[in-house]
Amino acid sequence: MGLKPIGDRIIVRREAAEAKTSGGIILPDTAQNKPQKGEVVAVGPGRVKPDGTRAPMQLKAGDKVLFTSWAGDEFKDRGRDGEILVMHEGDVLCVIEG
Amino acid sequence: MGLKPIGDRIIVRREAAEAKTSGGIILPDTAQNKPQKGEVVAVGPGRVKPDGTRAPMQLKAGDKVLFTSWAGDEFKDRGRDGEILVMHEGDVLCVIEG
Amino acid sequence: MGLKPIGDRIIVRREAAEAKTSGGIILPDTAQNKPQKGEVVAVGPGRVKPDGTRAPMQLKAGDKVLFTSWAGDEFKDRGRDGEILVMHEGDVLCVIEG
Amino acid sequence: MGLKPIGDRIIVRREAAEAKTSGGIILPDTAQNKPQKGEVVAVGPGRVKPDGTRAPMQLKAGDKVLFTSWAGDEFKDRGRDGEILVMHEGDVLCVIEG
Amino acid sequence: MGLKPIGDRIIVRREAAEAKTSGGIILPDTAQNKPQKGEVVAVGPGRVKPDGTRAPMQLKAGDKVLFTSWAGDEFKDRGRDGEILVMHEGDVLCVIEG
Amino acid sequence: MGLKPIGDRIIVRREAAEAKTSGGIILPDTAQNKPQKGEVVAVGPGRVKPDGTRAPMQLKAGDKVLFTSWAGDEFKDRGRDGEILVMHEGDVLCVIEG
Amino acid sequence: MGLKPIGDRIIVRREAAEAKTSGGIILPDTAQNKPQKGEVVAVGPGRVKPDGTRAPMQLKAGDKVLFTSWAGDEFKDRGRDGEILVMHEGDVLCVIEG
Repeated sequence: MGLKPIGDRIIVRREAAEAKTSGGIILPDTAQNKPQKGEVVAVGPGRVKPDGTRAPMQLKAGDKVLFTSWAGDEFKDRGRDGEILVMHEGDVLCVIEG
Repeated sequence: MGLKPIGDRIIVRREAAEAKTSGGIILPDTAQNKPQKGEVVAVGPGRVKPDGTRAPMQLKAGDKVLFTSWAGDEFKDRGRDGEILVMHEGDVLCVIEG
Repeated sequence: MGLKPIGDRIIVRREAAEAKTSGGIILPDTAQNKPQKGEVVAVGPGRVKPDGTRAPMQLKAGDKVLFTSWAGDEFKDRGRDGEILVMHEGDVLCVIEG
Repeated sequence: MGLKPIGDRIIVRREAAEAKTSGGIILPDTAQNKPQKGEVVAVGPGRVKPDGTRAPMQLKAGDKVLFTSWAGDEFKDRGRDGEILVMHEGDVLCVIEG
Repeated sequence: MGLKPIGDRIIVRREAAEAKTSGGIILPDTAQNKPQKGEVVAVGPGRVKPDGTRAPMQLKAGDKVLFTSWAGDEFKDRGRDGEILVMHEGDVLCVIEG
Repeated sequence: MGLKPIGDRIIVRREAAEAKTSGGIILPDTAQNKPQKGEVVAVGPGRVKPDGTRAPMQLKAGDKVLFTSWAGDEFKDRGRDGEILVMHEGDVLCVIEG
Repeated sequence: MGLKPIGDRIIVRREAAEAKTSGGIILPDTAQNKPQKGEVVAVGPGRVKPDGTRAPMQLKAGDKVLFTSWAGDEFKDRGRDGEILVMHEGDVLCVIEG
């Protein structure tokens, strides 16, 4: 998949609806909300700081994450019949370990 | 529970409705409001400052806290039949001691 | 009372409605407004500045204060049948002396 | 009167409605607007700057001033049957000399 | 006229409606709009910068100016049967020369 | 024409409606939109920076430009039966060369 | 095409509706949305930083990009019967490689 995020953006593949996570954490059961959980597919090089250097990124490809309900722009990925989101790293709430 | 907050976010397990706190502090009795009180379960590493270092966190796991009514994103924790909130540390009002 | 505010927040016990203050200053007589006056019960350690030190607080426990109409989050204090507010120090307008 | 403003706030006693000022400057004649003119009664110590020092105040008790229509929080002063406003110094438009 | 603006504010006497300016520049002919043109009567000492010094002012008394439609607070000047506006210098668009 | 913009503002004479530009770039054909194209007539000295010096301007009189749909304050120029706009340089999208 | 963006703006030629990208990434299939994909045609010199130097640009002419749904100002390009958008570089989500 040839998408390379710019700045502090990341690409997340959204998890299919209603899958339970380890430890039983599932998204709000409000029917209309899409899952706020997915896997990081690619991360950008980081935000350009005023001095021209890059702010370090905290996430990496493969991280499983929870993110805010309004995070990112949504695109259909027909190749894998799912959805990808392009969001700012700051819209990620936490990493799911194990 | 494998949730690791990023930046200055924390994870709070919301207290069950209407439990009185020591000293009689209970949340606004407006029926529809959920309790604004809970226990800190995990804290992030702190916000990344412009110079690349981290701002220190003021809270730690185990702290009992009061937080604002609009704080955080809510998730169901089926494992323990309750709710967890992922919020910014700045949405916490105060720590409940004793 | 075991509430310890964090950052630049303070805890204020709101004065009962319609009590006159010394010098005759009473709150706007608009019936629905609650008194914007009370006593500081506890102050936080101060806002964490970018350099990691704390900004000094200007108020202390025991100060009688006037505050803005939208200040803070409200909690019932059943122990003393009244209300406490957790607000930012910046929402305080002035200290009432004497 | 024992009111001591904090930070960059000031206390202004609002002039009674429709009094003409020297040089004929009167407030907008729109009936429902209260006069935007009054006398400074007390000034705060100044805003705390990031380096911890205080920004100097430009006004002093006794100054007669014009201020914006949305300036400040209003309180009744029964002692002198009038109104006082607690506002930020920045809400003052100009000083009326002579 | 004893009005002394504070900070970066200026006092402008609004030009009577529909007067043509040199070079034919008149304000939007939308009937309800008041002229956005006038003469600077007084300028403040300049905005106080974080280091305590003043930012220099770019305008001076006597300058003829065009300003934005939402600029400033309006006061009647009965002495000269006109209107004065107290605005920030930044609300001025340009100086009319010649 | 004696208009001298202040700060980072510029004066642009708006192009008459529906004129095609070189290369066929015309404005959105939505009937009610006025052309977002014109010629720079005058440029200000530049924005005053915190250190008191001026930020350099990127445009000059004579440049043909495209600008945003909400750019600037509009004035009729009866002398040349057209419209002038006073806008911030930042509201210009691009320069049309050749 | 003689358009030279200023500051950190770029010019993007929007892709014709519903064209599939390599890897099957297509825009949200919501009928009314125009494709959020296109090719960079020109990039500006970069944003002027407070110290007067330019922030480096991350994109270059020829890059294929995805951008946010609200990005930029739209212009018809009759020469090539399509649409160009003038947007800030920060409105680009990611580069499509290969």
